[in-house]
Amino acid sequence: VASFAKTDRNKVRRLPERGVYDAATIYAIVDEALICHVGIVHDGHPAVIPTIHAREGGTIYLHGSKASRLLDYAGHGESLCITVTLLDGIVAARSAFHSSMNYRSAVLFGSGHLVEDPAAKLHALEVLTEHVLPGRWAEVRPTTAKEVNATSVVAVAIESASAKTRSGPPNDDEEDYALPIWAGVLPIRQEFLVPLADPRLAEQAPLPSSVLNARRSRVDGSGRQ
Amino acid sequence: VASFAKTDRNKVRRLPERGVYDAATIYAIVDEALICHVGIVHDGHPAVIPTIHAREGGTIYLHGSKASRLLDYAGHGESLCITVTLLDGIVAARSAFHSSMNYRSAVLFGSGHLVEDPAAKLHALEVLTEHVLPGRWAEVRPTTAKEVNATSVVAVAIESASAKTRSGPPNDDEEDYALPIWAGVLPIRQEFLVPLADPRLAEQAPLPSSVLNARRSRVDGSGRQ
Repeated sequence: VASFAKTDRNKVRRLPERGVYDAATIYAIVDEALICHVGIVHDGHPAVIPTIHAREGGTIYLHGSKASRLLDYAGHGESLCITVTLLDGIVAARSAFHSSMNYRSAVLFGSGHLVEDPAAKLHALEVLTEHVLPGRWAEVRPTTAKEVNATSVVAVAIESASAKTRSGPPNDDEEDYALPIWAGVLPIRQEFLVPLADPRLAEQAPLPSSVLNARRSRVDGSGRQ
Repeated sequence: VASFAKTDRNKVRRLPERGVYDAATIYAIVDEALICHVGIVHDGHPAVIPTIHAREGGTIYLHGSKASRLLDYAGHGESLCITVTLLDGIVAARSAFHSSMNYRSAVLFGSGHLVEDPAAKLHALEVLTEHVLPGRWAEVRPTTAKEVNATSVVAVAIESASAKTRSGPPNDDEEDYALPIWAGVLPIRQEFLVPLADPRLAEQAPLPSSVLNARRSRVDGSGRQ
């Protein structure tokens, strides 16, 4: 889809001018985030679980152990909400009332099914691995059939979605601009620090391109990828 | 409470050795995070909304416009799940199977009520402002009665909670340690960059201590506060 229909489910009610429905914007937010928060209903109560995700087209992959309660639930067609939030800055206005955050968030609705075919599971695991650290799949020891079997993979079809974003300086009351109070934005970025090699690292194991590229993408200010 | 009772609701099922129930650990995670993800049930479906939070004792404050659907829902005693996640690193193992993330997450369950008393609301707004940027409340133009009135504040009593954490190097299969594959952790930190002054900044408005201290706390590696 190029854009998601605005429905009762995905409509941005508060500050509708911040609402976005085009798939490209929504998917860019989903792809930049390292993790998502999955909402489920368990015995009538809400539960929100953080987990790694990856997107392929209109599908979100989740994975984990066969014993995972989230994946068991998510794999059986129950209604899910997957939310992704990128925090871009603290907006320090001249009043507490107009202080805010700069952010890009995406809220996806859909339902999932367990991926059972081993080849399809292996593919999803590659997509998930590549999402977290692009290039890593080719560097690691190949995944075994036993490992594929021990992992649950859920594919969630995105049925509806929206994004909400805020950027830029504070929007203060007109009369407050003259006050001698500093106002502006304290930008936030998720930074990758110096890689810590495993103390049990074998000899002849140089820092790989996946890690070098990830570091580079966060140091030159260009964001991920 | 010093520690939350382990119940069906808050029990960490997957990798129970990563589960934590003591309030001090859980609250430290909640306090370090700038935002949370609130899970609600709307017409039987889950919805997950990112928002600013602040904790005072066993209470979480949420706030927003009077028109906010989340606050309307949360203010009427419905069951809530508030999840906070701090991402500490990408764990690059020698296999995709053992690759993981280092993180600290807290999952809180409870129900909320609208704070109606103006003085109590004003206090909650101070707690929320100070959570995001300690010291800021004293720097901004005082909050007016009209602003307090236009804001909804919800106090959520934490009834049950747990935390889950992972730290340290990968846990690879014993036979994989000899492989010439780099493994380790790519640490992640939420960094505050150079503050961007509002283009409409008045003269005589130097960078305030709140912003300077926040920056300092993230630059010297000591974390928040």
